[in-house]
Amino acid sequence: MSETRPPGLGEFRLLVSGPEHPGLSAAVSGALAEQGADVVRFDQLTPAAPAPADHAGPTSYLRAAFRVEEPGTGVPLVEQALHELLDGKGMTWTISDASAPKRMIILASRSDHCLLELLWRHRRGELAAEIPLVISNHRDVQAGVEFFGIPFVHVPSGGEDKSASEAEILELVRGRADLVVLARYMQVLSEDFLRAIGAPVINIHHSFLPAFVGAGPYRKAWERGVKLIGATAHYVTPELDAGPIIEQDVARVDHTYGPKDLQKRGAYVERAVLSRAVQAHLEDRVVSRDGRTVVFE
Amino acid sequence: MSETRPPGLGEFRLLVSGPEHPGLSAAVSGALAEQGADVVRFDQLTPAAPAPADHAGPTSYLRAAFRVEEPGTGVPLVEQALHELLDGKGMTWTISDASAPKRMIILASRSDHCLLELLWRHRRGELAAEIPLVISNHRDVQAGVEFFGIPFVHVPSGGEDKSASEAEILELVRGRADLVVLARYMQVLSEDFLRAIGAPVINIHHSFLPAFVGAGPYRKAWERGVKLIGATAHYVTPELDAGPIIEQDVARVDHTYGPKDLQKRGAYVERAVLSRAVQAHLEDRVVSRDGRTVVFE
Amino acid sequence: MSETRPPGLGEFRLLVSGPEHPGLSAAVSGALAEQGADVVRFDQLTPAAPAPADHAGPTSYLRAAFRVEEPGTGVPLVEQALHELLDGKGMTWTISDASAPKRMIILASRSDHCLLELLWRHRRGELAAEIPLVISNHRDVQAGVEFFGIPFVHVPSGGEDKSASEAEILELVRGRADLVVLARYMQVLSEDFLRAIGAPVINIHHSFLPAFVGAGPYRKAWERGVKLIGATAHYVTPELDAGPIIEQDVARVDHTYGPKDLQKRGAYVERAVLSRAVQAHLEDRVVSRDGRTVVFE
Amino acid sequence: MSETRPPGLGEFRLLVSGPEHPGLSAAVSGALAEQGADVVRFDQLTPAAPAPADHAGPTSYLRAAFRVEEPGTGVPLVEQALHELLDGKGMTWTISDASAPKRMIILASRSDHCLLELLWRHRRGELAAEIPLVISNHRDVQAGVEFFGIPFVHVPSGGEDKSASEAEILELVRGRADLVVLARYMQVLSEDFLRAIGAPVINIHHSFLPAFVGAGPYRKAWERGVKLIGATAHYVTPELDAGPIIEQDVARVDHTYGPKDLQKRGAYVERAVLSRAVQAHLEDRVVSRDGRTVVFE
Repeated sequence: MSETRPPGLGEFRLLVSGPEHPGLSAAVSGALAEQGADVVRFDQLTPAAPAPADHAGPTSYLRAAFRVEEPGTGVPLVEQALHELLDGKGMTWTISDASAPKRMIILASRSDHCLLELLWRHRRGELAAEIPLVISNHRDVQAGVEFFGIPFVHVPSGGEDKSASEAEILELVRGRADLVVLARYMQVLSEDFLRAIGAPVINIHHSFLPAFVGAGPYRKAWERGVKLIGATAHYVTPELDAGPIIEQDVARVDHTYGPKDLQKRGAYVERAVLSRAVQAHLEDRVVSRDGRTVVFE
Repeated sequence: MSETRPPGLGEFRLLVSGPEHPGLSAAVSGALAEQGADVVRFDQLTPAAPAPADHAGPTSYLRAAFRVEEPGTGVPLVEQALHELLDGKGMTWTISDASAPKRMIILASRSDHCLLELLWRHRRGELAAEIPLVISNHRDVQAGVEFFGIPFVHVPSGGEDKSASEAEILELVRGRADLVVLARYMQVLSEDFLRAIGAPVINIHHSFLPAFVGAGPYRKAWERGVKLIGATAHYVTPELDAGPIIEQDVARVDHTYGPKDLQKRGAYVERAVLSRAVQAHLEDRVVSRDGRTVVFE
Repeated sequence: MSETRPPGLGEFRLLVSGPEHPGLSAAVSGALAEQGADVVRFDQLTPAAPAPADHAGPTSYLRAAFRVEEPGTGVPLVEQALHELLDGKGMTWTISDASAPKRMIILASRSDHCLLELLWRHRRGELAAEIPLVISNHRDVQAGVEFFGIPFVHVPSGGEDKSASEAEILELVRGRADLVVLARYMQVLSEDFLRAIGAPVINIHHSFLPAFVGAGPYRKAWERGVKLIGATAHYVTPELDAGPIIEQDVARVDHTYGPKDLQKRGAYVERAVLSRAVQAHLEDRVVSRDGRTVVFE
Repeated sequence: MSETRPPGLGEFRLLVSGPEHPGLSAAVSGALAEQGADVVRFDQLTPAAPAPADHAGPTSYLRAAFRVEEPGTGVPLVEQALHELLDGKGMTWTISDASAPKRMIILASRSDHCLLELLWRHRRGELAAEIPLVISNHRDVQAGVEFFGIPFVHVPSGGEDKSASEAEILELVRGRADLVVLARYMQVLSEDFLRAIGAPVINIHHSFLPAFVGAGPYRKAWERGVKLIGATAHYVTPELDAGPIIEQDVARVDHTYGPKDLQKRGAYVERAVLSRAVQAHLEDRVVSRDGRTVVFE
């Protein structure tokens, strides 16, 4: 769930993660209070984890949404306090300005259900982003994109050798995106590309991962005779379909569904799962650490 | 979800609610920090509400789970600090000792599915309560209760005039319960009884309230031809089935279900919904205010 | 679920309902067999019902999807056989040609989420209908409709006296629609209008009926503090929000949702519920009788 | 959903599967009609399947629930007709007497949530079976079983060499069970055992198969960071966790769940999924063919 009141000028979000240490919430909220920050929401937790044998110890996560009367002076002072508090203790933290929408570039192929859902939610004001560009290797989706007033660029996928098309996409994206979304973009991206892109990449996989990794998951699901089909939104890492999961959901199916029916039914799960994951990311509610995510409500 | 680590000696939970005021989280976590409290979880929020025309202004809710090395001295000092911070500002607050299980007395009638589910979850260690007593107006459930080693008392419902049976129950309950659970107890309790009982009362209603208030909800659901049936756990207030809702859920049904089938299917929803509501209450995750509840995860 | 193979020339659907009588399935499938019909799917059931005191006795429902090699001669012969079998026994029956898409006219107001969902599913080939027209009392949705290549007509709602606008809509719809869908059309239709329209009308109500009948259901849901919100698709009858329910669903919400958040979240339930109800109707899977529906899977 | 009216003397269920052939429903319902059978429910379908390249062609499935006035003579005549109709065409079929409860033997280990759920549903009259015996390799569950009046036998699992314990179980089960249910029985059964047991075996696996095959699925689920956990009921085949799936379901979890929390939460999904699968089997609603199941509603 997003913040409970509309973000206005001067609303910020702080995300912190790192090794558990006592007094974290007091230190952070003290630093906020000192700058007169009005805390709208504050969540701090230390999730359960298996025995320390294979893990380094508990990790704490903290998220605060707060408003500052004079952002120009207040936020730098909060930041300075956090540097003193958290740096050197293995903590990672960011502060985002809720009034500055993230730049989100979407890549799609021929299937447009995930793409259109994002554009439609964006137009309704439910995704706090600006969309400078949609890129696709198919012209089929162009009219749909342009109807929403979003610029469209066609980058053919280029057969076996993807280096040219990847280079072209890099040129378009690098420095212009805070987030890249693969909205059923049916090309596997190279490790080099992922290293160079300079922004987190969210993908939607059309199965309940880790079941049915790779191509043709609905066909595989039919063959296995599952009674539910699913979709998984995750951050992309070099290993195929193995990145940290942000959101998953399923739908009930039965024996009357052939592989094509599973695909049709699954499309509705995919678009919902991807949208919810993108929204959570845009609202600074996701922390990814050690291959897993914490998604604040 | 319960705390993420097992409650041990010296773990406490603080619940606060009241008119929004800036610096609440800082003040509270500062007071905790000052006593060396180790904060396991900290949640503070100010839910959205309609325009102030009909509401007095935003309300803030705060929950903290924390550990104190020396509870005997630490907690009183925290309490003293909170008195100074919160009293006189319209704030309500409580601190509970997580290691002191609440005393829960259960009232049931002939249907035992909700009752047995509570006893079974209790035995598994999933409900942090002790159960001094189960009271029923039917002897049918006695053997099932005693199998779990819980004392059972039969109080016949006494026909039209319930004052005698209510008096008998009051005698058994008053001063011996921190929570009373109506696990499909099919008697309407009088306003006098509720005033005298001295503990919150949780009821399970076998419909998705506010649909189908009162008796015979499955029959009414069948007549209306609904495609989902539901159950609602709520705190009991004098007005029938109108108290603050803690938890609800539904199950899908179809045209093949007659009224009796709805009742059978519904039993599984009822026992799950009641158990989750009771668990939330026992873990000090529920705040009830202005006829509505906040249920911390 | 739709038929398991694509409807081709010569695929038909039979729906039968009426008082239970032995031998119904044998008689019907015998009549089909005699004409060389290839039965793709055959469902017959007699749902449970309360005691005959208040009901006239069990009702049987039957649906058959079948293919006939020579529709021009085969289907009339099937129809003749069914006349002999079923007429005079209180049975109601229809045969529909699966290759003849129904004509569906949609009425909408300003909110376009249900409307666009229907148009989008239609374009994907998931709704077996042709859409001759969309009518709205707001011009806001015009561009979205025309993007899908569907004609749009603006009929202002005309304030207090709706008779002029209803007459205009009747003029546009009568004789041109097999189904009328109210996709969040925020006007109550008069009894005269419903009598004159000559086609079934499906409405989406933005609550889990029978909870929150009438206007402002999300505001009412917020006030009652429900933990799930819902939507209901039903056939329209003169009594407000009381017609036979075709489909319902819910979504989980919590205390962080204000009334506006409930409305946003609910929009996704509404569009899914309405689409599924419309699809079921278009595939001749719904029988409405005695204020309740049977929806074949 | 079970039959819509209580099974009485003379109610039977027919299950048929095999290569599609026209006139199947007519032939079968004709044979039933000829013997004066009163058909309560009749379902026939030919599910969609991928191209015939890798499959032998469409398969048809048929289920009929019917009542016969004089079972002693009527049913044998129906059977004779079906022999003539279906044998020699690759069709498989069975007729079961709904009034003759199947004999179900349950194997369990220490975790009793699935076991007790089955016993409890059985006592409520929701599982049409008799339970001659529960076998466990742990004495912990004995008192719970005997409370329900069911005989209990302890068969220690016998360490590395399971042949002795398997032989002992075979001795107890063979010829005395129509169905064997593994209610969280934590021993892998040998191929020899499965060949010798002479009854279908249903297992509950504590993950959403095919994800997390084998031991420790909740730990694996935690490591992968999934947002839903699941359970799968399937017929047991020699290949581990690869048999035909009867039922699956999931529950939502989040980052606050450690592996032990997943296990606790999962227990509720397991017991529901196993119970529904067992109920479907007992009501002759499951056909297993080519590694997949058809589950009639």
